[in-house]
Amino acid sequence: MKFATLRDHSRDGVLLVVDRAGQKAVKATGIAATLQDALERWEEVEARLQALSDALNEGKAEGAFDLDRKQLCAPLPRAYQWLDGSAYLNHVELVRKARGAEVPASFYEDPLMYQGGSDTFLGPLDDIVHATEAWGIDFEAEIAVVTDDVPYGTTTEEALGKIRLVMLVNDVSLRNLIPSELAKGFGFVVSKPPTAFSPFAVTPDELGDAWQDGKVHLPLEVQYNGAWFGNPDAGPEMQFSFARLIAHVAKTRPLGAGTIIGSGTISNKDRAKGSCCLAERRMIEKIDTGEFKTPFMKFGDTVRIEMNKDGKSIFGAIEQTVRQWKQEG
Amino acid sequence: MKFATLRDHSRDGVLLVVDRAGQKAVKATGIAATLQDALERWEEVEARLQALSDALNEGKAEGAFDLDRKQLCAPLPRAYQWLDGSAYLNHVELVRKARGAEVPASFYEDPLMYQGGSDTFLGPLDDIVHATEAWGIDFEAEIAVVTDDVPYGTTTEEALGKIRLVMLVNDVSLRNLIPSELAKGFGFVVSKPPTAFSPFAVTPDELGDAWQDGKVHLPLEVQYNGAWFGNPDAGPEMQFSFARLIAHVAKTRPLGAGTIIGSGTISNKDRAKGSCCLAERRMIEKIDTGEFKTPFMKFGDTVRIEMNKDGKSIFGAIEQTVRQWKQEG
Repeated sequence: MKFATLRDHSRDGVLLVVDRAGQKAVKATGIAATLQDALERWEEVEARLQALSDALNEGKAEGAFDLDRKQLCAPLPRAYQWLDGSAYLNHVELVRKARGAEVPASFYEDPLMYQGGSDTFLGPLDDIVHATEAWGIDFEAEIAVVTDDVPYGTTTEEALGKIRLVMLVNDVSLRNLIPSELAKGFGFVVSKPPTAFSPFAVTPDELGDAWQDGKVHLPLEVQYNGAWFGNPDAGPEMQFSFARLIAHVAKTRPLGAGTIIGSGTISNKDRAKGSCCLAERRMIEKIDTGEFKTPFMKFGDTVRIEMNKDGKSIFGAIEQTVRQWKQEG
Repeated sequence: MKFATLRDHSRDGVLLVVDRAGQKAVKATGIAATLQDALERWEEVEARLQALSDALNEGKAEGAFDLDRKQLCAPLPRAYQWLDGSAYLNHVELVRKARGAEVPASFYEDPLMYQGGSDTFLGPLDDIVHATEAWGIDFEAEIAVVTDDVPYGTTTEEALGKIRLVMLVNDVSLRNLIPSELAKGFGFVVSKPPTAFSPFAVTPDELGDAWQDGKVHLPLEVQYNGAWFGNPDAGPEMQFSFARLIAHVAKTRPLGAGTIIGSGTISNKDRAKGSCCLAERRMIEKIDTGEFKTPFMKFGDTVRIEMNKDGKSIFGAIEQTVRQWKQEG
């Protein structure tokens, strides 16, 4: 199943079921008002949502309409929890080098994660609006899963069955605010502004054989200002599966239904695969030439993040432009 | 106004208006279903909630009943955002010393905050349940405010008017997991398990003249295993007001209605005022005697956190016992 959320001036939007091609949609509000609502009552509503999805894909759903992606917000416009991992160690190695920091040996056995802000997410086509370019605006292309309720003490083996949905992420970062904030020792707050998500959140079965061992075995395709920027494979170099990331957190707390768990920036050791954020490309430039060349995002710059299987876009594209924030009124 | 939330097997409970004495309550569900709902429609519902509160305090509210605090969950049983500050620099100085870390000079001008997990909160009388005492279970007695919608770029001056509610917090910490987690550089995840809140969340006017400049000028009273543990004044030594903490975060993001902002552990330089967490008492022991004496919490240990004004409990008491987690089934 593919889900999207229609913007409607409420805070959580309207739940849509979307067809496999991402062209047609139908309101699922007779079954669940919002995606959060569906996640909280998954066992109760799954079969009915599946029947609606099947009818839509067969061209038989009543009330189906042509989907206008401009009307979409994030599948979950807000959530009770957003935890992001750093499961691609190649990215961690490069970004740490860029900050003049070492990667501790434990990072290869113990997942690195941070608690993100989840009260306000950006939709897939929403502008990234900030007060100044001087903060070093960057994108980070990632994958995320959405969980069912996850009890305290859930193991990696058990966690795999708690994954309900998969989606794409642009984990917007303010690079020039990161060093001083992380130096304070309590992680990211102001250096991680609102995060954006793909148009569609899909059940893992939509990924077919690309969903294996709690990882997505497909390239993530990133374009920057209309040009290829990277297409690393999200599968083999993911050091910690999504199930492992979930279990890491569930060690000391339960997770509520609708918790979003991110993979961290996708990254491959093979440089021909490009990068999923500017910081990583800059680090490679520094290693190769002794200096950073690519600047961070300027007002007007655009990023596109998408994942295709057999030539078809699974999640729809995140397409965002950086704009200058203006004081209201 | 005083609010509480009745546990009812839903995830967000039922909104109650509570009388000034904390003894009588009335369901506010004819006005707003939950506290989150009320916060999202504050301008629309405030006058009606005030009228209900006035009627209750005058003994004229229909449907009023004797409040059983055992039936309460946290005022917000879950939230879209929980951000905790460290506004009492004396605490930061002592705890950093305990970790062998220095307090950077910038800490006196730039608030230290972390993004906390907000999907599952503990009620005021809920047990603190963990798998092992070896994690170093500690309480942290704090104050928190709940905000209205806070636009991107809100200033400290503007932020004061965005504070809707005040409550007490037990920011449970797993001290022995903190050093290795903070060493990873991305802040707290597993070392900060679910946080607990006081029975009541109150509008700032309930604090009378104790609410000044975005700070609460009253002692926070902490008992550990039934004995006095501390009663530091929450006012004068709060380096950053709640308004300043809100503005700090709003620099790069809007905050959604219902965002909870914590003060950090209350702490006074005057040692006669005691402490609001075990880690701080332990540090003082270390400084005075060369060794830590007080252990972290053991199964069965209890903490009580309360704040009185003119001999009356404003928020009701947080009273929690540490228990051992048992695998279900």
